[in-house]
This record gives sequence, structure tokens and C-alpha cells, in this order.
Amino acid sequence: MADGLILAIDAMGGDDAPDVTVAGAELFVAARPNARVRLHGDETKLASLLSKATERIEIVHTDLAITSDMKPSQALRRGKGSSMWNAIEDVKAGRAHASVSAGNTGALMAISMLVLRKMDGVHRPAMTAAWPTLRGRSVVLDVGANLEADAAQLVTFAIMGEAYARAILGIEKPTIGILNIGSEEMKGHDEIREAHELLRNSDLDLDYHGFIEGDDISTGTVDVIVTDGFTGNVALKAGEGVARMLGTRVREALTSNILSKVGAVLAIGGLKQLREQMNPSNVNGGVLLGLGGVSVKSHGGTDAKGFARACELAADLANSHFREEVAHNLNKIRQKGIAAE
Amino acid sequence: MADGLILAIDAMGGDDAPDVTVAGAELFVAARPNARVRLHGDETKLASLLSKATERIEIVHTDLAITSDMKPSQALRRGKGSSMWNAIEDVKAGRAHASVSAGNTGALMAISMLVLRKMDGVHRPAMTAAWPTLRGRSVVLDVGANLEADAAQLVTFAIMGEAYARAILGIEKPTIGILNIGSEEMKGHDEIREAHELLRNSDLDLDYHGFIEGDDISTGTVDVIVTDGFTGNVALKAGEGVARMLGTRVREALTSNILSKVGAVLAIGGLKQLREQMNPSNVNGGVLLGLGGVSVKSHGGTDAKGFARACELAADLANSHFREEVAHNLNKIRQKGIAAE
Repeated sequence: MADGLILAIDAMGGDDAPDVTVAGAELFVAARPNARVRLHGDETKLASLLSKATERIEIVHTDLAITSDMKPSQALRRGKGSSMWNAIEDVKAGRAHASVSAGNTGALMAISMLVLRKMDGVHRPAMTAAWPTLRGRSVVLDVGANLEADAAQLVTFAIMGEAYARAILGIEKPTIGILNIGSEEMKGHDEIREAHELLRNSDLDLDYHGFIEGDDISTGTVDVIVTDGFTGNVALKAGEGVARMLGTRVREALTSNILSKVGAVLAIGGLKQLREQMNPSNVNGGVLLGLGGVSVKSHGGTDAKGFARACELAADLANSHFREEVAHNLNKIRQKGIAAE
Repeated sequence: MADGLILAIDAMGGDDAPDVTVAGAELFVAARPNARVRLHGDETKLASLLSKATERIEIVHTDLAITSDMKPSQALRRGKGSSMWNAIEDVKAGRAHASVSAGNTGALMAISMLVLRKMDGVHRPAMTAAWPTLRGRSVVLDVGANLEADAAQLVTFAIMGEAYARAILGIEKPTIGILNIGSEEMKGHDEIREAHELLRNSDLDLDYHGFIEGDDISTGTVDVIVTDGFTGNVALKAGEGVARMLGTRVREALTSNILSKVGAVLAIGGLKQLREQMNPSNVNGGVLLGLGGVSVKSHGGTDAKGFARACELAADLANSHFREEVAHNLNKIRQKGIAAE
């Protein structure tokens, strides 16, 4: 891995694989002149899809692929040697700096955890999501790697989310909030209140804002939103559902009569910009934070541009000081018995 | 209460009270020729705000009002004789069929529970919210009356939500879903899985659909979404935040240049319709279900039209068979030891 970054890609995972993953990999290497890619999957198919041969994209053949209906336990038993497994194994073995897959989420989390193992001090890894806000973008975690989180886990989520936001959003000192109902300190579960106290009174060098509520996420009140995986997943999907519904409604409104159709044509510049702002491809990619290597999950239904975006996210994270920063902060709370041993 | 419905209104609660509450009460009685209102609050102020004297609006004087910063415990200790308390007391004493307040939510829940008490068989009351969907509207509960809910409580939420959706949405046989992450049966907390089994195997005459995910809410996959108060509150507010952010973005897009401004003027018919569809006033009003009487919570920042909408909701619910239907179903599960004794 002497010069430049190497990315391991599961080319067979996702709704429109391998077409989208190959096209996405080509977009990625075009945008990053020093990057190289190891493309895992069916050699014949992948070679036929490459628009031109380049030594910066190396195909690594395997017949095996993880299907979307496979349960995590099945993926662990039967997934060895699959394109997903091999991509993650590349990271473990040092053949790549990071891996990307648009495949089965449960399988990806299970295989990533087994192969890459947890970072020292982390109880449980957490899945991130990027959330578009009025101020730009925020990071929400956990959005589904775990069902629950105790106070110490929430504190480690805060530490990881903060370093992650710095790495991928380029914010020098990201602010952190814990998702709660009501901003009064008496509200919320015990776990949340305890995490709040730990973060408020810690000597960690974190910009902890306090509790936030659901509507603060889109406002961009904080850069990092800390919550348990159940709540985070529901909030993320509820928000996605509202955005989709409103998109449908706006389209209906702008085609409801001949005048509004003409109006929509005139307004097309502004509307295009809006569509670009809200394009899920631009915020594609979640990361299972807290592992011994970078494993990025792309949305399964993404397009080539979105997949390339997930590759860039993986590259940015691999190129950052994320691990050192997290290790530094985990070490501080370990001395207080909060981090995992 | 011989002829027509009587509504008790806390005229002093809400951001713009009593202006909005008085105007809303007048809109309500104008729309419901047989309804009467008991308006609780400062007699001089209220009388001066009434556009014309009518015997259908009776002012019931009190000096005391619950403030927005009062904690529930303070409201219970010091709130007796306040406009909010007196409105709820009207329902208890049979002087009104239902009460409405736009005031302090925590205080309203606490006073409602103390004064109206729980219905037989209900462990904990649940707060509802109306959620606009692609198909119309759905009911989400609990959105914050409780932090947690065990399986038996979730089953009673399903029973109450179903009867409520019939009463206020006019759906003959509302469908019910439990909010979860992933639709596979193995996922989710124990409480959720247990409630799922109870509803699936019950002899209740309910149209139980199964698990749904966050994005299904806006799709309108089911009419009633059952969840615990923490998750429901976060989902509701996260969705509100996304809707507000997108509203801002659409406005920006339609005013970003001169062409798009002209376009927006031409499209104004369709956009007006959209704004009307999405107007929060049209879905205003949450109800604390499971009490011995109807207590409706209006959004604190609503306008007169929205407050009138909350009054109509209260009237519809008071006029329905909600209580009998819930009692009937609770009785069935009580025989199996699921309902509260």
C-alpha cells in the first residue's frame, strides 16, 4: 500500500449490482487520481462492465455472493469467500485501507464485527447516518447496529461520532447532543440522563451541547446526534418517509394544472438545485464505527454516483485521524471505568 | 346537557391565548350549530375578545392560569382553580362532554389523569398524534405520555388507537401496525415481539397488520401506529423537523432567481393546495386516551383555525362510541390477564 489509498469493494452487493458498483468504482478512481480499487466478485461480469481497463481497478474473482435475504447468522456460517467477506478481509489483512458494500446490512454488520473485531475500549459498534439539515449535514448514531444502549455505550457513541464528524464533514470541533424528549433535565430514560451527566462532567475535550429533541435534527442544532439504535433507526426512517411524501406532494402541486406546469418549467433552475441538495446520493454511506478497520455500508438502492460517494466517504475516513482520536478519548474514560476493558 | 354537545375550553393556555382560543371557540360554534362552549379564564379579557355575545359561549371566570414553564408536579399542587383545571373538572362533573387546552402539555396530562382517572383496564393513558400520509391521515400513539411501554400496554394502545381512528377518521375498520426496525419477526425489543404475538393470536376483532418501519408511517401503510412514548415522540418531532426544513428549501428554490419567482406565481394554485394539505392546523389536536373523559391537547402555537380543529376533534370523540368499543375489547383481554385490573 506504498502510495495512495486502496479501497476494497464488494461488487456483488446491492439492488443493481454489479452495474452500479462497477460504474461507481470508476467514478471514484476518476475523482481520486491516487486511489486504487480491489473489486471483489464475478470476474467475467465485472470485466465486461468496466468501461476501460485500468491498472487502478483490480478484479478479485469469487463465485460466492451474500444474498439480500440471508440472515446474519447464515452469512456468518456460509459467507466466507463471498465478495462481501473478501472485501472486509482485505482491510483486516492490510491489502486495503477501507471496504465498501451496498449489500445485505445485517450480514455486513455481522461479518465486519467478526473479521475486523472491536476497537479497544468499545463495548458495541454503532452505525452512522448522514442527515441533511438547514445548516448542512449532521451525523446520527446509532441507527440500528444495536437495539439498546446503556450510558457508557452512549458516551462511546459520542466520542466516535465526534471524531467521525471531524473526519468526514471537516468540522474542526463538532457539537454533540443526546436525543431525548423534552429538553428538561428530568426527562428521559435513566441511561440517557446518566450519559448526559457523564458527558457534562467529563474532562473529555468535547463540545457537548446537552439534550436535543427530534425536530432539532433537521435544524442542525448539533453536528452529532447520539441515540440508541432502535430510536435512531425509527427517527431516520420516519424522516425519510416524510421527505418522500413531501417530494410526491410537491410534484403533484407543480403539475396540478396548466399554469402550475408552466410555472414549474420556469422555476426549473431553482428546483434542480433543490433536487441536488436533497439527492440521497449525496449523503450516501453509513459506517459501522468502533471496529478495527473501516467498513462502509452504501444504500442498497443507490445509483453509481451515490456508490462513488460512499467510496469517497470510506477514503476520507481511512485518511483521517479518526482511530487515534477515538483511542485517545476512550483511554481517558477507561481510567474512570466507563470504556469497555 | 340536554340538547347538543358542550365543550369546556381552557381559554388561557397556549402561546397566543386568549386571542386564539376565543377566536377558535367562535369558529367552532359557528361550524357546529348545536354545540355550546364553556370558556374558562379571565372574564374581562375574554368578554372583550368575543366578536359578539352569544348564549352558546358562556364565560366561566378564574384569575388563575397554568404557565408554560410550570412542571407537572407544580401544576398538580398549585393548579386547582386554574382555567385548565376547571375545564377538565367540567368533564368530570358532567358539565361538559369534553375539554380542550393549548396549554402546558405536562401539566395537562398530569391534571387530566388526576381529575378524570384511568378507564378500567387501562394501565397507562397514551397521547395520540395525527400524521399526514400519502393516503390521508394516520394515528400514532403513544407520542409522549409515557417513556416506556410493556407488551400489555402496547396491546391496550392498539385497542384504543383503533377505536380512536374509527371515531375521528371515520374509517370503519382501521388497520394497526407496531413500529419496529426491520420487518423480520426476529427483530425488535422483547416487549414489541410479545405485543406482536398477543395481537396476532388474540380473538379481538382487530385488523392487525404486523410490524411496520419508520418510513411506512408517511406511506400510510396502516391507520394506527403503535409504539412507546419515547419512540413515538422522537419519530413525530423528527418528521416535523424534516417537513419544516423541506418547506424552507422549497421556498428558497422558488425564489432563487427571477424566473423561478415568476414560475412560483404561476404555480400558486397548486402550491396553495399543497400548503393547505400540509397545514398543521388541519391535523391539530392530540388526545390523552384511556381516561374517564375526553381531554384534548391543542398545539400551543396553533392559530384560531387550528384551535377550532382541536375543538371539533374533541366533539367528534365525545359523540363517538369510543369508550364502549374500548371497554368491550379491554374486557376480552382482561379475561386473559392482559388488561390492568
